[in-house]
Parts: sequence; C-alpha cells; structure tokens
Amino acid sequence: MLPVEKITSLQNPRVKRLVRLRDRRPRDEAGLFLVEGYRQILRALEKNTPVAELYFCPAFFLGENEPALLRQAAAAGAALVELDKNAFAKVAYRERPDGLLATVPQWKRTLDGIVFKNPAAPFLLVVEAIEKPGNLGTLLRGADAAGVDALVVCDPVTDLFNPNVVRASTGVLFSLPAVVGDSGSVRAWLAAKNIRAVATTPSAQTLHTDADLRGPLAIVMGSEQYGLSDFWLREADARVRIPMAGQADSLNVAMAAIITLFEAVRQRA
Amino acid sequence: MLPVEKITSLQNPRVKRLVRLRDRRPRDEAGLFLVEGYRQILRALEKNTPVAELYFCPAFFLGENEPALLRQAAAAGAALVELDKNAFAKVAYRERPDGLLATVPQWKRTLDGIVFKNPAAPFLLVVEAIEKPGNLGTLLRGADAAGVDALVVCDPVTDLFNPNVVRASTGVLFSLPAVVGDSGSVRAWLAAKNIRAVATTPSAQTLHTDADLRGPLAIVMGSEQYGLSDFWLREADARVRIPMAGQADSLNVAMAAIITLFEAVRQRA
Repeated sequence: MLPVEKITSLQNPRVKRLVRLRDRRPRDEAGLFLVEGYRQILRALEKNTPVAELYFCPAFFLGENEPALLRQAAAAGAALVELDKNAFAKVAYRERPDGLLATVPQWKRTLDGIVFKNPAAPFLLVVEAIEKPGNLGTLLRGADAAGVDALVVCDPVTDLFNPNVVRASTGVLFSLPAVVGDSGSVRAWLAAKNIRAVATTPSAQTLHTDADLRGPLAIVMGSEQYGLSDFWLREADARVRIPMAGQADSLNVAMAAIITLFEAVRQRA
Repeated sequence: MLPVEKITSLQNPRVKRLVRLRDRRPRDEAGLFLVEGYRQILRALEKNTPVAELYFCPAFFLGENEPALLRQAAAAGAALVELDKNAFAKVAYRERPDGLLATVPQWKRTLDGIVFKNPAAPFLLVVEAIEKPGNLGTLLRGADAAGVDALVVCDPVTDLFNPNVVRASTGVLFSLPAVVGDSGSVRAWLAAKNIRAVATTPSAQTLHTDADLRGPLAIVMGSEQYGLSDFWLREADARVRIPMAGQADSLNVAMAAIITLFEAVRQRA
C-alpha cells in the first residue's frame, strides 16, 4: 500500500489552492502548474518531469492503468492525495475528468541554455505575443514535429503553464525546450549567434518557398490578431509570405507556422 | 422600420426548435443549420447564402454594425425575429453570445457538381471519417487556403453543418465546395476522372516531398484516431508520409493535411 492522504472537504486549503492554480498570478506565485488527465501525466513522468503532488479520485477512473501510474508517480517522488468525488469534481479543470490531477513545478529555461542538435544550423521557432493558449500548445506540437531546437516565446500574453497550453501541447511541453524572453533580447541573441530571423507576414514580397531556409534559422511568427510587431518586421533578416488562394484569414498562426516550418524541413533535408 | 416579430417566452416553439438544431437528427430533419455571431452571419451573406431567419437580441450587441446586418439579411429575404434577453441566452450556442443567430438552409453538393479551376489538374482534399467538428472546420480552412477545388468528406462521423464546424471554418463553409460521399463512390469517381489519390499515412515509405503532387490530385487523409481505412490504403495510387522529428502524435490530422496541401501548392506553382 502506498501512503496516501485523503481529502473530503471542499473547504480544504489544498482544494482551494488547486482551483486557484488555474489563474496565472497564483500559478506563478506558487511556482507550480496543473497537469490533468492520465495521458498528460504519463507524458510528464516519461520525460522525467518532477511531479509535486498527484491528486486522484478512483470514482472517476476510466481504465485499469491508474494504480500503476500512481505507483510510478510515487516512485518518482510525488505525494499522493486522494480526493472524494465532490472534491475532485471541484478541482478538475476538464469537462470530463478522469480522476487524475497533478501539480508540477514550473521551470524557466534561458536562451543560452538551448542546445543545438546541429551546431552549424540552429533551427528555432520564435513566436510573438500569442494570445490563445490553444494556439501556443499547437505551436509547441508543430515545432516538435518539425524538429526545432526550441520554441522561443517573445513578450507572452499567455504563459506556457496555462492549463490549456498544457493540454493542447499533448505532452510536448515536457520535452521541447521553450524559452520566454522579450523581443529585444531575443533579437540581440539571434544576432550574436548568427541565426537568421525570417519573419512570416502577409505583406512580404517573397514566397516562403522561394526563400533560403537552410543554415542557422529562426522562423518568426506574430500574434493572432495583430501579426508581427513593427520591431520584428523591421529587425528580421528576411520577410516571407505564404501564398493564399482562399479567404484572407483562412490560415491561423499555427497553420502558417507549420507550413513554414515544414518548408524549412524540406530545404534542410 | 423593418417588420419584426418578437418572442419573449422560453416556451415558444421556435425557441425550442433553435435549441434542437444543435443536434444532428433534428438539424437534418429540418434541413436547416445554425450560424451564430456577427462575423459568421456576415460571411454567409457575403457569399449569397440564403438565410431563413435571423434571431437577434439588441441587449447582447457588441458594436454598431448590427442594424446594418439586420437590414442586409432582411433585404436578402431573411425573416427577422427579436428575442428578449432570456430567450436569446437560451438559444445561443456560444459562451459569449453577441445577439445574432441565423438559421440557414442546408445544401447538398455532388461530386459531379465540382468545378475544376484548372480542368487539366483538378486539386482536391479527401478526408475520411473525421470525428471532431473543430478539425473538420480547420480542414475546410486549410483546403481553402491551398486553393483546392473542393473538400470531399467520406463516410462522415461529423456532419458539415455541426455548429462547431461552422464556427471553426470561419466562413469557409459558405464558399468552398464540400461534398459528402461514401468511400467506394468517391474512389470510383476519382478513377473515372483520372485523378490520382495520394494517401497520407505514417506507414508510407515515400516522403510527401519526394512524391509527384502535380497534375490531377486528391490528397486523402484519415480519421484522427484510426488514420486511413484499409480500403483507402489499398486503393490509393500512392502513399506518402510526413517526416516526423518529434513525438509520434505531434501532428494532428489538420496539421498533416495542411503540410501536404502546401507541398502540393509548391510543386504545382
């Protein structure tokens, strides 16, 4: 038997704290974030992410594998806390909870900590002021699929540890390095590393397929609503656009990013 | 003044019917579907989509342009119906309603009705058994951006007129031809038209960038959970895969489709 604490009161301070962790300020103050659901928590453990606490409620379990996940989390140092059904329903963030909710310590990576798989040709995705957590999570997935060395998030509106970023990233948050910084510092760092910044913007003359995307490369994408700031449009080494056959706004930022990333993958092969 | 009917009772049969239209069976029986929100309804009107009824509630209006939209809809033949705040809150599908909800007659397009912009090189996206409405809407956007002649939906799990398809398509549903059919009929029609079916599947040997995607082309994508059926894997003229650098499931079906579509756009330019 694993040592387990049990909570049945909705007034328990830990129940209240879990609910507060959905919001950014308490999340940042606690230095923790929420990871909900079997699959996400398994991904975190598989990537050796430290798990602080694992809250569980067997009444919500969907399968047979939950006890093994609890043992795996406990072995990795997580405190196990059982909640009754009411308490778990209160702390669950998802519409259909599966009885598993973890708190995980936030981390902070730096630009200088990025390891380039090919030091001769760093490959980065830089995104500016993304607003929607779902888009940030999808950008993480696309960047991972394309094999970038890191995602760099400039001047974030949404933080990396928002529950919807965690969910939309389908575990990529636990494996792909993601660095947060201000645009000025990121631009200066790219220049110092001789990494070309290629901005994607509908106003560019050059098609993304006509630009040279080999060598040290950072693809730079703007926010959903405003696109890239004047700063990046001016400071980028090149500007490219994706040819658009349909409605002006058919492509969202994640789709535009993945098209540009995979054109780079093609050229770099 | 426009002639306007007013509804204040939650028991009004039209209020109840609007709620039922969220579900597929009543939607198909009525031959109508819901289009909610200023932007979506404007898109429908811009594309000369017939609007049956436009329900509105000024208490929810967010801007100044709603009266003009009402006039435009009425001029196009829509019946205007005012709802009070309670009634509108009940019929609204969105979390944050903006006081506008239209019913639009469903349409049915056929394979033989598809018009090829370049008759020498038809360009289609075929998707099989897509489950999530949001993905189907995003596929519509991606197909539109790439300039395909039509989206062909085989053996649909989700219908084209699901409110979340309408929303995720950001109006593309009203402009891009979308045809529903069974896989057998679609395969036979492609063969009769000499259109090559290129299946995207992780099990393929050939990279999508190494395949010839010029000429008459249908890119075929499988469902989120199961990928392509044996039928399409066997019957396709070619099978291609996208190179994956990261987690096995980093790319969802909409991302995989847009990567393949834009590689085809590059080759066909």
